[in-house]
Amino acid sequence: MALKARVLYDFSSENPGEISIAENELVTLYTEEEFDGWFEGENHRREAGLFPATYVEIIRSDVSPNNNNNGPSTGFESQSQSQSQYDNSVRSSAVDISKASPPPLAAYPTPAQQPPQRGSYQTSQGSDDDWDDDWDDQSTATEDTASVASGRPSTYMVTTSLPGPGGQQAKSSATVGRNLNRFSTFVKSGGEAFLLGEAAAFVKDGDRICVVMGQCGPEWQKNPYPFSCAIDDPKKQTKFKGMKSYMSYGLTPTLTNVQVNRRYKHFDWLYARLVERFPVISVPHLPEKQATGRFEEDFITKRRKGLIWWMNHMSSHPVLGRCDVFQHFLTCGADEKAWKLGKRRAERDEMVGANFFLTISPPVVPLDLQEVESKIEGFKSFTKRLDENIVVVNTTINEFARKQITGFKKEYQRVGQSFRLLGQAFEMDQQAYSAGLNQALAYTGEAYETIGEYFAEQPRQDLDPISDLLDLYRGHLANYPDIIHVQKGALTKVKDCQKSDADLHNRCNIISCATLAEVQHFHRTRVRDFRSQMQHHLSQQILFFQKITAKLQEALQKYDE
Amino acid sequence: MALKARVLYDFSSENPGEISIAENELVTLYTEEEFDGWFEGENHRREAGLFPATYVEIIRSDVSPNNNNNGPSTGFESQSQSQSQYDNSVRSSAVDISKASPPPLAAYPTPAQQPPQRGSYQTSQGSDDDWDDDWDDQSTATEDTASVASGRPSTYMVTTSLPGPGGQQAKSSATVGRNLNRFSTFVKSGGEAFLLGEAAAFVKDGDRICVVMGQCGPEWQKNPYPFSCAIDDPKKQTKFKGMKSYMSYGLTPTLTNVQVNRRYKHFDWLYARLVERFPVISVPHLPEKQATGRFEEDFITKRRKGLIWWMNHMSSHPVLGRCDVFQHFLTCGADEKAWKLGKRRAERDEMVGANFFLTISPPVVPLDLQEVESKIEGFKSFTKRLDENIVVVNTTINEFARKQITGFKKEYQRVGQSFRLLGQAFEMDQQAYSAGLNQALAYTGEAYETIGEYFAEQPRQDLDPISDLLDLYRGHLANYPDIIHVQKGALTKVKDCQKSDADLHNRCNIISCATLAEVQHFHRTRVRDFRSQMQHHLSQQILFFQKITAKLQEALQKYDE
Repeated sequence: MALKARVLYDFSSENPGEISIAENELVTLYTEEEFDGWFEGENHRREAGLFPATYVEIIRSDVSPNNNNNGPSTGFESQSQSQSQYDNSVRSSAVDISKASPPPLAAYPTPAQQPPQRGSYQTSQGSDDDWDDDWDDQSTATEDTASVASGRPSTYMVTTSLPGPGGQQAKSSATVGRNLNRFSTFVKSGGEAFLLGEAAAFVKDGDRICVVMGQCGPEWQKNPYPFSCAIDDPKKQTKFKGMKSYMSYGLTPTLTNVQVNRRYKHFDWLYARLVERFPVISVPHLPEKQATGRFEEDFITKRRKGLIWWMNHMSSHPVLGRCDVFQHFLTCGADEKAWKLGKRRAERDEMVGANFFLTISPPVVPLDLQEVESKIEGFKSFTKRLDENIVVVNTTINEFARKQITGFKKEYQRVGQSFRLLGQAFEMDQQAYSAGLNQALAYTGEAYETIGEYFAEQPRQDLDPISDLLDLYRGHLANYPDIIHVQKGALTKVKDCQKSDADLHNRCNIISCATLAEVQHFHRTRVRDFRSQMQHHLSQQILFFQKITAKLQEALQKYDE
Repeated sequence: MALKARVLYDFSSENPGEISIAENELVTLYTEEEFDGWFEGENHRREAGLFPATYVEIIRSDVSPNNNNNGPSTGFESQSQSQSQYDNSVRSSAVDISKASPPPLAAYPTPAQQPPQRGSYQTSQGSDDDWDDDWDDQSTATEDTASVASGRPSTYMVTTSLPGPGGQQAKSSATVGRNLNRFSTFVKSGGEAFLLGEAAAFVKDGDRICVVMGQCGPEWQKNPYPFSCAIDDPKKQTKFKGMKSYMSYGLTPTLTNVQVNRRYKHFDWLYARLVERFPVISVPHLPEKQATGRFEEDFITKRRKGLIWWMNHMSSHPVLGRCDVFQHFLTCGADEKAWKLGKRRAERDEMVGANFFLTISPPVVPLDLQEVESKIEGFKSFTKRLDENIVVVNTTINEFARKQITGFKKEYQRVGQSFRLLGQAFEMDQQAYSAGLNQALAYTGEAYETIGEYFAEQPRQDLDPISDLLDLYRGHLANYPDIIHVQKGALTKVKDCQKSDADLHNRCNIISCATLAEVQHFHRTRVRDFRSQMQHHLSQQILFFQKITAKLQEALQKYDE
């Protein structure tokens, strides 16, 4: 006998493979098995396809058809942790689920915007040797890889919209309904589960994260043991008698002053742990992977500079900088056993996703949620504009760098060559009184050629670092739509709740405190970074023009000799 | 009965309208009248056309056919002064003589070379109002114009070659034959006439020009009363109740400290006098004429700068600076009568052309003519190379100026705008601690835009003056082929003379002394001008980069506030 289900909410198909279903309609399920949150079946118009599993309630003999006040519960709890990690490159379902996912909505639909490449972290198993070659514990490689899969999609394009029907149609429920969009970041991050009181875990003292009330609102409690970490020039290492080679970075945290060696794949693994662990914290993106040319000097230099920026953001973050997995990464030495132990512990950490919020200790006085909403709205506009403008700035300074390396250099060198030519013509005349001028002209020619070189070398000193910083910030800005999403999801749920629910409020307050603390941290870091980078840039430019001036002064002196 | 002539030398037609004639051939003349040195007639092949008048001897009953040892003498002496000024734009012969002139040979056949526009001085009677409008003495206007016609062609292109047949074929004569190319600068300048002892005039003491022996060879005796002359911004003047307008330049020579007013046409008239008067002196070219837009600010500024350079070269020249006509030009006030008197005197000056050489007092010890030849050869190569290289330098710095005005400016302004954009995005965040950074970014943006303006304004300060100087020198270099030509013509004549002729040697020595003194003056002036111009350029560049540095330092300070 065909398995039937009652439709709880209207669903309009928006992608091929989906079918539209209407509230109260009875649909036929082909199987009770869910494919990543979707059922396959047939509607009353005999159209076959996919629809969201949470939009229907399976009709069973032992369940009263009226008992739907808490929404469908089909395997939701058990799946919320393990399956929230949506990554179709890891799953290998018989049905191509990826095609059927609800229509992604670009958070900031600006045409100029291109999500930074590094944003699309997937622990690929193929092209990048640096990652691909054997992990220290071969037997767990597959499991590792799967769990590493990005906890939330970190580009704009895969950010899903706030639930359409959920908010409005769940009003009939007593307190507040579930978010019906299984792909919503709010759901995937564990934000919803926490808000609905479904998170439960034992919080160790060491895991507790305090949010304090600062002058400008909630702030992460400062790290009482601030530190930094140096990254040495990477060394090329080989294994299997030279069959495999990789780059190894020496990290020396000021905490221990002991150098540890890490490969890019270790950074990558760490990144995946952090993303999974901290739903409303913007984990800085790693510098981009590059499959070929990994040992080329330019790439190595660029990646190292990127890792330095990354490390700088990690170590100065009050929460990320102190977390166990990062500390393990920074301090665990060459002891294989200790490394594996820490690695396993991190991978089995229970405080990921929804449970993360359990670790937050908010300030005593709860926030005014309306104020929170307005702050978040302001921040959203801010990030949108900043992202747009960073694109322009980055394009401009890269173009400026290119012009200096090519055009400016060429112009000065041509002028130099033409002064030399003048001197060469003058040398044909053997008048003794012209000799000084001839030499001075030759020197001037040389000086201009040198100045051309100065122009070509300069961007590396003062434009590239700005570009690197902008790349890092584009990574952060790519994280924020999801963070804002979680926050907004929580606020919407509280608004939708008709009865005042103190627990719900408290939990929303915790999410808000964490989000605003992270926003505050972002602003402080931004002001610090851009101030120091602009100072660096201008200082370098000043040195550059002084160097040119000195060269010209040298040339000028030759005319007195 | 047809007028016959015997052909003295082979002549090969090289242009349409010319006919070839062979030595000893009898040709028929259509008329005894010469057209600018050419006869029209028929050869033995019955071809009709033009051939050089000096290549034939008219057969008359009263002349022995053997009496040709001194070459043809048909009206040569009487024409050498008045008709040596070859300018087909002034003459209006019924036959288009200009087409029949012997093939011009480019002295320096470098493809890149373009004779400077200003080089082609012809006192046009048409387009340039500045010149065209009435002269102070209407009745002599035509006569003036005719005599103003360039004494020697001042571009490379119309420089004629050394006489082909003349040198070799005149060997039969007792001492030395005439140059048979009537268009040769050697002939036109009066160099040949002087060398052959045909110049004769009374030299006043005031006209005497001393060449002294300096460390580096013959030099013009220094002007014992050195002076300079300021040129004020020109004022627009009108006459005929505003119907006509012209620009008037106030000149204040240090000799009198009295300002006189001169128009461009006065400069032009003076230039023509000088060219006619001084065959082996390089008269600096005037800044180019411009028919339209004469009152536009840019043109006025450019012309004034050109005139300042011109005046600088004139007043610092030991011969030109002291000559009567220039002194008259500089010191004659508003008295119309005095002006006309000086003008007439200059126009009737007998010491032009060949007679100029009579005014030269050479050093006691005559020069070694072989050494002179080698020096002149060296100078010829030098001017050739210098001219080539000046073309490259001028192209390069003009292109550099254009890049600074357009590309460089745009790049810096774009960077400025992008820094502003960053500041504007940051302003959307209301954090108080970001305000200082936002303002600093706005200031930095402004600073870069200002630096862009600096780049655009700079070429006017330090590249344009070099370009002006190069233009002036291209004018001088355009003069030298002719000067070298006169010198070489004299040396060739002396070599061709089989008997040692003391007078010929003495006269060649005078020409050589004058030429080498002028060459020496050129070198001294060149070293002076290029040294000071390069010093000016580098000083301006230093100030420019210091200005940029100061602007960046201001911007940098804003980040501390």
